[in-house]
Amino acid sequence: MNEASLLTLLTQVRAGALSPDEALARLRLLPVQELDGVRLDHHRRLRTGLPEAVLGASKTVAQLVRILRAMLAQQDVALATRVAPEKAEAVCRELSGLSYHAEARILSGNEQYVKAAGEGLITIVTAGTSDIPVAEEARVTLSLFGHETQCVYDAGVAGIHRILAQADLLQESRVVIVIAGMEGALPSVVAGLTPAPVIAVPTSVGYGAGAGGAAALLGMLNSCAPGLAVVNIDNGFGAACMAAAINRPAKRR
Amino acid sequence: MNEASLLTLLTQVRAGALSPDEALARLRLLPVQELDGVRLDHHRRLRTGLPEAVLGASKTVAQLVRILRAMLAQQDVALATRVAPEKAEAVCRELSGLSYHAEARILSGNEQYVKAAGEGLITIVTAGTSDIPVAEEARVTLSLFGHETQCVYDAGVAGIHRILAQADLLQESRVVIVIAGMEGALPSVVAGLTPAPVIAVPTSVGYGAGAGGAAALLGMLNSCAPGLAVVNIDNGFGAACMAAAINRPAKRR
Amino acid sequence: MNEASLLTLLTQVRAGALSPDEALARLRLLPVQELDGVRLDHHRRLRTGLPEAVLGASKTVAQLVRILRAMLAQQDVALATRVAPEKAEAVCRELSGLSYHAEARILSGNEQYVKAAGEGLITIVTAGTSDIPVAEEARVTLSLFGHETQCVYDAGVAGIHRILAQADLLQESRVVIVIAGMEGALPSVVAGLTPAPVIAVPTSVGYGAGAGGAAALLGMLNSCAPGLAVVNIDNGFGAACMAAAINRPAKRR
Amino acid sequence: MNEASLLTLLTQVRAGALSPDEALARLRLLPVQELDGVRLDHHRRLRTGLPEAVLGASKTVAQLVRILRAMLAQQDVALATRVAPEKAEAVCRELSGLSYHAEARILSGNEQYVKAAGEGLITIVTAGTSDIPVAEEARVTLSLFGHETQCVYDAGVAGIHRILAQADLLQESRVVIVIAGMEGALPSVVAGLTPAPVIAVPTSVGYGAGAGGAAALLGMLNSCAPGLAVVNIDNGFGAACMAAAINRPAKRR
Amino acid sequence: MNEASLLTLLTQVRAGALSPDEALARLRLLPVQELDGVRLDHHRRLRTGLPEAVLGASKTVAQLVRILRAMLAQQDVALATRVAPEKAEAVCRELSGLSYHAEARILSGNEQYVKAAGEGLITIVTAGTSDIPVAEEARVTLSLFGHETQCVYDAGVAGIHRILAQADLLQESRVVIVIAGMEGALPSVVAGLTPAPVIAVPTSVGYGAGAGGAAALLGMLNSCAPGLAVVNIDNGFGAACMAAAINRPAKRR
Amino acid sequence: MNEASLLTLLTQVRAGALSPDEALARLRLLPVQELDGVRLDHHRRLRTGLPEAVLGASKTVAQLVRILRAMLAQQDVALATRVAPEKAEAVCRELSGLSYHAEARILSGNEQYVKAAGEGLITIVTAGTSDIPVAEEARVTLSLFGHETQCVYDAGVAGIHRILAQADLLQESRVVIVIAGMEGALPSVVAGLTPAPVIAVPTSVGYGAGAGGAAALLGMLNSCAPGLAVVNIDNGFGAACMAAAINRPAKRR
Amino acid sequence: MNEASLLTLLTQVRAGALSPDEALARLRLLPVQELDGVRLDHHRRLRTGLPEAVLGASKTVAQLVRILRAMLAQQDVALATRVAPEKAEAVCRELSGLSYHAEARILSGNEQYVKAAGEGLITIVTAGTSDIPVAEEARVTLSLFGHETQCVYDAGVAGIHRILAQADLLQESRVVIVIAGMEGALPSVVAGLTPAPVIAVPTSVGYGAGAGGAAALLGMLNSCAPGLAVVNIDNGFGAACMAAAINRPAKRR
Amino acid sequence: MNEASLLTLLTQVRAGALSPDEALARLRLLPVQELDGVRLDHHRRLRTGLPEAVLGASKTVAQLVRILRAMLAQQDVALATRVAPEKAEAVCRELSGLSYHAEARILSGNEQYVKAAGEGLITIVTAGTSDIPVAEEARVTLSLFGHETQCVYDAGVAGIHRILAQADLLQESRVVIVIAGMEGALPSVVAGLTPAPVIAVPTSVGYGAGAGGAAALLGMLNSCAPGLAVVNIDNGFGAACMAAAINRPAKRR
Repeated sequence: MNEASLLTLLTQVRAGALSPDEALARLRLLPVQELDGVRLDHHRRLRTGLPEAVLGASKTVAQLVRILRAMLAQQDVALATRVAPEKAEAVCRELSGLSYHAEARILSGNEQYVKAAGEGLITIVTAGTSDIPVAEEARVTLSLFGHETQCVYDAGVAGIHRILAQADLLQESRVVIVIAGMEGALPSVVAGLTPAPVIAVPTSVGYGAGAGGAAALLGMLNSCAPGLAVVNIDNGFGAACMAAAINRPAKRR
Repeated sequence: MNEASLLTLLTQVRAGALSPDEALARLRLLPVQELDGVRLDHHRRLRTGLPEAVLGASKTVAQLVRILRAMLAQQDVALATRVAPEKAEAVCRELSGLSYHAEARILSGNEQYVKAAGEGLITIVTAGTSDIPVAEEARVTLSLFGHETQCVYDAGVAGIHRILAQADLLQESRVVIVIAGMEGALPSVVAGLTPAPVIAVPTSVGYGAGAGGAAALLGMLNSCAPGLAVVNIDNGFGAACMAAAINRPAKRR
Repeated sequence: MNEASLLTLLTQVRAGALSPDEALARLRLLPVQELDGVRLDHHRRLRTGLPEAVLGASKTVAQLVRILRAMLAQQDVALATRVAPEKAEAVCRELSGLSYHAEARILSGNEQYVKAAGEGLITIVTAGTSDIPVAEEARVTLSLFGHETQCVYDAGVAGIHRILAQADLLQESRVVIVIAGMEGALPSVVAGLTPAPVIAVPTSVGYGAGAGGAAALLGMLNSCAPGLAVVNIDNGFGAACMAAAINRPAKRR
Repeated sequence: MNEASLLTLLTQVRAGALSPDEALARLRLLPVQELDGVRLDHHRRLRTGLPEAVLGASKTVAQLVRILRAMLAQQDVALATRVAPEKAEAVCRELSGLSYHAEARILSGNEQYVKAAGEGLITIVTAGTSDIPVAEEARVTLSLFGHETQCVYDAGVAGIHRILAQADLLQESRVVIVIAGMEGALPSVVAGLTPAPVIAVPTSVGYGAGAGGAAALLGMLNSCAPGLAVVNIDNGFGAACMAAAINRPAKRR
Repeated sequence: MNEASLLTLLTQVRAGALSPDEALARLRLLPVQELDGVRLDHHRRLRTGLPEAVLGASKTVAQLVRILRAMLAQQDVALATRVAPEKAEAVCRELSGLSYHAEARILSGNEQYVKAAGEGLITIVTAGTSDIPVAEEARVTLSLFGHETQCVYDAGVAGIHRILAQADLLQESRVVIVIAGMEGALPSVVAGLTPAPVIAVPTSVGYGAGAGGAAALLGMLNSCAPGLAVVNIDNGFGAACMAAAINRPAKRR
Repeated sequence: MNEASLLTLLTQVRAGALSPDEALARLRLLPVQELDGVRLDHHRRLRTGLPEAVLGASKTVAQLVRILRAMLAQQDVALATRVAPEKAEAVCRELSGLSYHAEARILSGNEQYVKAAGEGLITIVTAGTSDIPVAEEARVTLSLFGHETQCVYDAGVAGIHRILAQADLLQESRVVIVIAGMEGALPSVVAGLTPAPVIAVPTSVGYGAGAGGAAALLGMLNSCAPGLAVVNIDNGFGAACMAAAINRPAKRR
Repeated sequence: MNEASLLTLLTQVRAGALSPDEALARLRLLPVQELDGVRLDHHRRLRTGLPEAVLGASKTVAQLVRILRAMLAQQDVALATRVAPEKAEAVCRELSGLSYHAEARILSGNEQYVKAAGEGLITIVTAGTSDIPVAEEARVTLSLFGHETQCVYDAGVAGIHRILAQADLLQESRVVIVIAGMEGALPSVVAGLTPAPVIAVPTSVGYGAGAGGAAALLGMLNSCAPGLAVVNIDNGFGAACMAAAINRPAKRR
Repeated sequence: MNEASLLTLLTQVRAGALSPDEALARLRLLPVQELDGVRLDHHRRLRTGLPEAVLGASKTVAQLVRILRAMLAQQDVALATRVAPEKAEAVCRELSGLSYHAEARILSGNEQYVKAAGEGLITIVTAGTSDIPVAEEARVTLSLFGHETQCVYDAGVAGIHRILAQADLLQESRVVIVIAGMEGALPSVVAGLTPAPVIAVPTSVGYGAGAGGAAALLGMLNSCAPGLAVVNIDNGFGAACMAAAINRPAKRR
């Protein structure tokens, strides 16, 4: 049941065609918009403030074309993450109006609907150069969500002066996303240098014990620095969503 | 070297008692305030906006008394987390001016220095009643940091109507902390219902596979809902710090 | 919003005191019965066919007394699992009308409301004598839910003739619950001997590698025998709920 | 020793050619049907009600052809799961009478022997579109076993209204199979909405911590909702077997 | 059905009171000795050559008394492993005729039935003094099974000369049991010095990473030395059983 | 220092050219045969009764050719395990006199030096057909070591009659190797049916939780059946070495 | 801020153009050399005594060319580790002056700046031939850092005489690097034979349980031999850096 | 065979009482000092430069008394680590001449044999106050080995200025031991600030994910800073041994 049919039901109650008791029975479980097979959640922006995005990793080209075509038909940004280069090329051959951000592996469209959304600056820091693709996933996502970003790449703790040199920028940021693989120590240092909330993103950079990001993830979860929370390994998109949720103009009392 | 001695050094340069080159040598590595044995970081509030707090779990009574006495002498809130009841009682026998929050296991003092700090409402949700001690650690910490909170306890997904009934409150919150053990599914549902950033806190409630909070932690890290980040298992204090960092009046552009 | 207030709302629509549009706004998110602090889900039986039960492990005596008193006031069976002997004794001192099943560690009351619920026989098998407490948790739960059970204890695979001797009973059962620690091989053997669905319960019996039930759990999940599903380690209550859901008279086409 | 030779032995006892004591010695360990090299268990349907099926994943084309040819010679459905497309093509080139279900990766034959077997409706739910191949493995298997199914795909918890919209269907089902990757929270929500037994299937969809399905598996095992049991990661076939065992007309008392 | 009733059945066939077909139906599934509640497997020695033994760890005093009384009534050695001192004392107060081996934590009785069983010498080696309780569990078990043992304790690889000094003994042994915690390297060295099969027993001695015996277990499983197999952590009894099975006079061709 | 130089040294002592004290200093640490770069341990057979074998997995074709040429020059069997088909082909092109056992992935040569070595029969059992390559690695190795084997393949516990039908063979064996993936339950059943020592080999067959053989390994380590020890996952060669060590004619007292 | 600008600042203070208070504000957080995008840390040698090296594993050819060109322009050794052969070839096509060490997978240049740096001999030992690539990474790195090395390859514990034969060399070494996969037992034996500090390097050689190096890593961390520390799995470069730090002429008192 | 008997043997060869060939046979395997039951390795100092020490954790009071009495009878320092206070008290009641270092949990004696052994300064750094017991274990051990230490406690990365303030000390040290729990990030920062080799010691301080030291251990193994190696969790003694081995006056070329 969608809103239209709910309105019909209420109108029937009003008109006496349906008794309140009969309506009650039908309303006991939430009547919500019944969607088609793909169940694209176009109402997400209403509920959560973030547009629908699609995870491209396990979708076929045909599925991506179908979903992105539906998205482009809406008056909102279209966005697919984790799209490998060949897949992106195949999609773009069948569907015009899309851009591919190669390092971020993002397909986007309808950029004309991007609206400035954030109050402050979101700073994105990486420990090494190998962490940059994850950082770019966050940066491109945020720019499509309408937020301003600044990037500081390759500033890991083995040369501590590199992040200390950015202390002013960290102090001025509204949110800081810190992306690191290996031992994942950078977010702890950053959180000790800024009043901004820090979103820590472990990456799968590394090898041996802790390969795949386990060491970085555990390190960030066990950080002794307050004002820090963690998203999944390599989840640049998730970090961007959290940063956007923080940076959006909030209800104040 | 602390700020006083740094000022002395700069004054000596000004007075010609020290050449710029000599000063350079002494300044090459960051000269910062040299603290006593305990190295209490009273400047943390300046850098990060959060007061120093002490993790009581592995401290002896003697250590806690010494540290809290030093904190009480400062013009700022004093706060020790994870203090077991007997330890708290022993500390309070030796040091007056402290309150013990039993369910939160927090010792606090100098509450007269609490200043209203937040812009919006921080909502704290738990999935079950067993998660309440972690929620209380977050709630008491936030009240000591000067933030307004509202609590919704025992609203897990096995009875999904319980959290749906709080949809308005979730929509109005500036930040939502969601605390859950077992399968840890509640944060995903909440993040789909609110534009506020969600801080997910896994708890060690449960048994068997995933005992100690592993199932809840993994579930939250793998959440399919955007706008959510995670802190360590049972880390109510960490969630409060992240919420405070988000809720503090931020620099805007 | 509970059903009463929902009825009120619908009546107001009927009476013209509320327009359908206004009602729509208030109904957009599911308005369900708002419960008190404990949020006991008395409607669970309506939705799921199973009465509410309370996990006693991490509740205090005071919490258990409060919750069980509320349950006893309902016209349904009252049931708390994982209640340690001392805790049970303390609860029973404050609240009359409860029975304690020591080996099963279950507190129950209102047994007069037990109604015969199942169609067939539920057989409970254990591999060793150390698995019996988990079996008893399942057996007592099922008897409180109104199902008939039969028990075969200490029939592990190291003496394979012990379970083969029960082949007729396995063939006649509607559901078989198989409980095993150590290597957890018994469910695979049983599932090869019966057409009944097998619910496998790993137990924490054992030591060394796989201590805590990991070996049994992994073994059961990787069973090469079809017609078998698994619940959490030591989760006799969960197995009983699954068995009850299977054994209840079902809608047929 | 098979039944024929057992009958011979018993006839010899009757005829006095063998003394009871001599027969006893030969019967001490179970004399059962000795099968050929492949040991296809054609008697499985008699014992367990389910036809033999073959796991194609680690079989060569030659092995599959040999086994499926033997199966097709029986008066029962032939079924091989986890057959990759190229392997399926190669098998079909050598053996006629087989169909390949591409998304389910199943090879089947002898469909004329499918007999309606179930009492009620089996509903198959997935959280995302990436979980559909596992769902299809379950659906095709169940249709070959003679059960009626209905599918609800892409109804995960981040948009909770999607599953709530299916509440009536869930209430009417005899069994519900719920398939989810990522945090695996959907089975808990479904089990709270239906009296039917829920079979939870974690999938390997996801990445980072909990990649390969660990987060979903742990989440489902730790579900706080009763009436739910779990099969191995991606095990659509196992879920179908459990559902068939539940849905088959059972002996009643 | 036990052997007596099987003999009855065969006699009935012989007498014509039962047709071969009727007997066939009753024999289809293995009719074996139906035992009482405890299901003590007194026939184990016939099938496997090893007497029944009972794992005392999770048994109550009452259970142990009941089982050991039944064992003492048989004409075979009685043996319970993993019996804590207080439990042993309580059992011995209620049941006479038992001896307690404190370091091995074994209760034994009916030693008059021990018969010399082995062909060669079984040597038991430990890496450290903390591994001795596990070694004693193996040694006492083997002496109760009738095998000759020799012990070399505290001969770990950090002082490699200690094991090299025992090279002659290792060469002469029929079986060598090597028990080690920490890194568990000793079995690899021993297996390189002897033609005897080596049974490696990891112990839970150690701390930090690999605490509980994981490092030793993994090390032994990954040994680069041939002629070595592993039992569970701290499983001195299991090592003894394997050694006894090897050392027993075997059928030869 | 090799034996030749040791003899030289001792002769010098005898001749008075070296004082006992001087010799002592040089003998303090074990002077053993210094080998060439590859350090092929041709003396292994003397110490351990097993010929040297080479693990081919991580060797290059050039390395394998060099090592096998050296082995062929000795008067003993030459043996390389884990040699992929292409690598085997390349080696055989450069070096004549080798045979490739495809399913076992073994390269062998000098078979004329195989001598009958064992006292009894070694039975090799697999649970499924996918476990056969590991079984073949064991079987070919044992035949090269001079032991008699018999194979029972595809006799897993889901159809328990398949292994029970082999009870006589199991009773007559001197050693039984049991190879199983998935839940790895077969060794427990076999060990309950035979007095022979059982060597359990987990395989990496399976998927999901416990993929890679973890479930089978843990199950075997936690077996409740005595007389069983375990080798590493897929380690058919290791099982063969242990079986050979057991089956070799042993020193008797 | 780099040293030049720091000197400017101090000169301004001296000249009275900047007050000490103003300077204090700018100096509160460490002003260090602000580097370009790549942030090559050319000052590392000053701080840590080791030249900058680049991890080639996750760099593109373009990135490697850019970084190595910058390194070659410095008067110091240029060094990139973990460079696959094809990548090395591509880099060398674009940039002259580099050598590729194939087994070590290292690209190096500017070897004319290598200066003898060490006091003593660094011995590198491997357990097997498969561990040699890791050893070569260490050996080449050390030679580029100016240290003398000696190698003992293929001396694992299954033939213990192989390492004992090197006892004199081990006694004379200043540092010993011991590299082993499988059970990783060799470092414990070596540490018991030498006064030199032992750097243990687990390798990913092996399979089954402990594949990827887990068994070797855990074994080395749990070594019972003193005077030993561990680096990450396969981390030959890290071992070389630690060895160089130890072997460098140290400040003495 | 000990040195005395070796000398006897050589003397016999010299005297012609034993032929070189006969001696060869007896010398083939290393004849070393055969020790008593405890096998105290008094020669360890000769081989490794470190005195024997005993791990007190799993020893009984009686064992400790016996071993320490033997140690005190030698002309070398006596040292037992991980001795709990009550155990220490009981030992000291039976044996005079011992000192107990409470925070380090070390029992020591024969301090008159301590000789200055090191060339440079060993600096011990901890991240938090809870890491101090591990640091004290290292400090007391080093002082008993004759090395000079300096301690910097409570200098974790969340307040990065605390460790930067010690930059001069770090530069001057011969070895630095860095001890940290939680995320274990401090060793990476320190290794970037000093040319000295850094020994990283993870501690079990922390909770939740990574409790028991796993996060710190993984972080340190994955450190991106060169010149660092790791010992086991909480292994202050092991760190001290490695530091002593590095700091001892080494052979130079």
